[in-house]
Amino acid sequence: MTAKRLVVIGGDAAGMSAASKVRREDPLREIVVIERSPHTSYSACGMPYLIAGLVDSTEQLVARTPEKFREKYNIDARVLHEVTELDLNGQRLRVSNLVNGSETWERYDQLLIATGAEAVLPLMQDSDSDGIFGLSTLASGIRIQQFIEQVLPRRAVVVGGGYIGLEMAEALVRRGLQVSLVEKGEQVMGTLDPDMGEMVSESLREIGVTLYLNESLTGYEAVNGLVTGVVTDQRTLPADLVIVGLGTRPNTSLAAAAGITLGEKGSIRVNPRMQSSASGVWAAGDCAESFHLVSRRPFYIALGTVANKQGTVAGINLAGGYATFPGVVGTAVSKICKYEVARTGLMEREIHDLGLLSSTATIKSKTRAGYYPGAGWITVKLLAEQGSGRLLGGQIVGLEGAAKRIDVLATAITAGMTAQQLADLDLSYAPPFSPVWDPVQTAARQLLNKIV
Amino acid sequence: MTAKRLVVIGGDAAGMSAASKVRREDPLREIVVIERSPHTSYSACGMPYLIAGLVDSTEQLVARTPEKFREKYNIDARVLHEVTELDLNGQRLRVSNLVNGSETWERYDQLLIATGAEAVLPLMQDSDSDGIFGLSTLASGIRIQQFIEQVLPRRAVVVGGGYIGLEMAEALVRRGLQVSLVEKGEQVMGTLDPDMGEMVSESLREIGVTLYLNESLTGYEAVNGLVTGVVTDQRTLPADLVIVGLGTRPNTSLAAAAGITLGEKGSIRVNPRMQSSASGVWAAGDCAESFHLVSRRPFYIALGTVANKQGTVAGINLAGGYATFPGVVGTAVSKICKYEVARTGLMEREIHDLGLLSSTATIKSKTRAGYYPGAGWITVKLLAEQGSGRLLGGQIVGLEGAAKRIDVLATAITAGMTAQQLADLDLSYAPPFSPVWDPVQTAARQLLNKIV
Repeated sequence: MTAKRLVVIGGDAAGMSAASKVRREDPLREIVVIERSPHTSYSACGMPYLIAGLVDSTEQLVARTPEKFREKYNIDARVLHEVTELDLNGQRLRVSNLVNGSETWERYDQLLIATGAEAVLPLMQDSDSDGIFGLSTLASGIRIQQFIEQVLPRRAVVVGGGYIGLEMAEALVRRGLQVSLVEKGEQVMGTLDPDMGEMVSESLREIGVTLYLNESLTGYEAVNGLVTGVVTDQRTLPADLVIVGLGTRPNTSLAAAAGITLGEKGSIRVNPRMQSSASGVWAAGDCAESFHLVSRRPFYIALGTVANKQGTVAGINLAGGYATFPGVVGTAVSKICKYEVARTGLMEREIHDLGLLSSTATIKSKTRAGYYPGAGWITVKLLAEQGSGRLLGGQIVGLEGAAKRIDVLATAITAGMTAQQLADLDLSYAPPFSPVWDPVQTAARQLLNKIV
Repeated sequence: MTAKRLVVIGGDAAGMSAASKVRREDPLREIVVIERSPHTSYSACGMPYLIAGLVDSTEQLVARTPEKFREKYNIDARVLHEVTELDLNGQRLRVSNLVNGSETWERYDQLLIATGAEAVLPLMQDSDSDGIFGLSTLASGIRIQQFIEQVLPRRAVVVGGGYIGLEMAEALVRRGLQVSLVEKGEQVMGTLDPDMGEMVSESLREIGVTLYLNESLTGYEAVNGLVTGVVTDQRTLPADLVIVGLGTRPNTSLAAAAGITLGEKGSIRVNPRMQSSASGVWAAGDCAESFHLVSRRPFYIALGTVANKQGTVAGINLAGGYATFPGVVGTAVSKICKYEVARTGLMEREIHDLGLLSSTATIKSKTRAGYYPGAGWITVKLLAEQGSGRLLGGQIVGLEGAAKRIDVLATAITAGMTAQQLADLDLSYAPPFSPVWDPVQTAARQLLNKIV
């Protein structure tokens, strides 16, 4: 076992979870990690808070440095090195040193592809201008931070109203910028149904973000290579800084070029043990496919939770153990302005597209007993299958203390519970934490009274 | 159906949940509620916060007044009336008007006993003195409030370190009293294992409560009928006010006298539809038995959540529908000084008493991402069955944002999940709400690495 040389491409959540797991199981294994950025094991999710000034330094977002991996874990973490070719037959990788340009071939016995995802940045008129940023790596976050400090932009336009776009819009308002947001959907937060997304839209307007909904990016304007405007299908918005939050795309060109089978949205298809179609080659994290436990279909999602779980599973298997990744239910949470926003399972559009029939209940309740100081509003939307009552999805928008309730719904959905079973659960109650019926149960009770 | 006359004994959570449910299903049914206190539908759990001054007025704790029940729901809610005899053969109740002393017999077709529970107040030397209070009804809370305002006690002794005792100890410190607490166990919060309870003990000492652990109440001292001291098996503590928090006992003397079968701790034995052993007589709430879904045994618990659920089930059945109450997993939560404290399932002693074998993991983590402002410590203890890995219980002590995570454990335990399934759950993550592995999953992962 210890003879096998493990090479990991990508030094963030999935790659380093796997490498650390293998190291714990096998103290003698040779482990090499190739990472093109200067950073390992960082919290990409923390970047909006760094830019907002809520987190003091980039270092706080780095869980473990390459030095720590080398010294403490005996993992050869080579940052600023990029894999440029994967030779499956020869079991080797072409690696380019990004500092001095030198190239080497690295042999592997086992390979884990954990190349993550990158921000989608559509090629358009002047899209290569300075001042236009995606946000996916720590390096991209640092570049935005530096741009703000050096160029002192006044007007920012965020393109895309997903959670990264919204967190960034709020962060930029905190930094004193004038912020507009362009979203092609009818509301922001397209992972919520529009009736729930509308509340989030409203909370952004309240802090001064100008929303342009039902409006699509068509290009940019620039002067001397520096962005000056965002062009949509309806207007041109002046901009000194543009954040493009149009989602992420798995970094799988290397795998694709080598002939490895891809799946949903170009992610690497894997079996539950995280093995790819190529012998000895595994994949995990934002570059790998997942499975949706409600739709029962392959699913692509780029989230740190999933990357850590897939990385751990891959690590156990690479070390000679046996583990499987069972899939996801699409849980996500975010803090947007005054609201905590959370979702799990399927939303109305997804349910419709699958040909399932659902009943819906949306209730407004409180996060604490109504008389307890700090009780805030919470709206819970619950979707269940008609006929069976099986829970299909849930969405929450509310004030402090609202969001983490989504985990009860995620657990109940995973267990295949019905609305009745959710209403019957022995959930906790005390006035500082909840009304006597937890809001998720109030929603379930409401659902039970629905006729279709 | 509408011919049946429903009489409910007890006008709080269970009784009024049932009465309201029957009214919704059957607008014409005659519904009479007999309640010996002046109040209906109040939050007994809110009383410590009223006494602490966090809630302004008693009225805030009353969800619906007798007048509202009469006027809006056409429910004949007779407060200050007490049932003194139950004649099962004659299908009638002897009712005493507590204001004028008059007595009547009330006929019923259906009877719901929802008489609740009362504070255990052991008869001892001088135990009938003024200044000694239990806390179970809103009326008892008001009496404590008035005593504090009129007698201006300086030194309070709380007897019993359960959640009511602890919440009251904290409330009295907030009111400026010097507070001691006597607890016969080795730590306060006997519904937690001692290692978890110890943290709670410490948090009470931090706010100035003097704890006397491993010490039992043996009597009181009084002068002119007013309490002056609490006598334990080790000392006498001077006291101007005594709160006795030695648990509650179901109010079932009426049912017992009529020959209705009792169960755990003297509560009324019911089937899952909440029917008692007597034809046409139902029971719900703090006077009724429950069922524990982990121990698989009858179980007695006096909690508002259970009372509301049992009342709803009884109401549906009384209205001619069909519903069952599936049981509880023993979930409870409380805010004690700086800590949020929660528990569900079985604790170590209960597991041992059942003859089950368990593995344990206790982890310390954070309530938010470590770098996010306001991240606080949280300790999670998880108990799982050896061999199967099935979750048996969980306990949480932590700072703000810790407690409601117990609901994920309660849901997972109800679903029969294993530690592995808990670790695999797709729970939510964003830096303001959680580390990337939620603390409950970190505990599950720790448990998976345990050998026995």
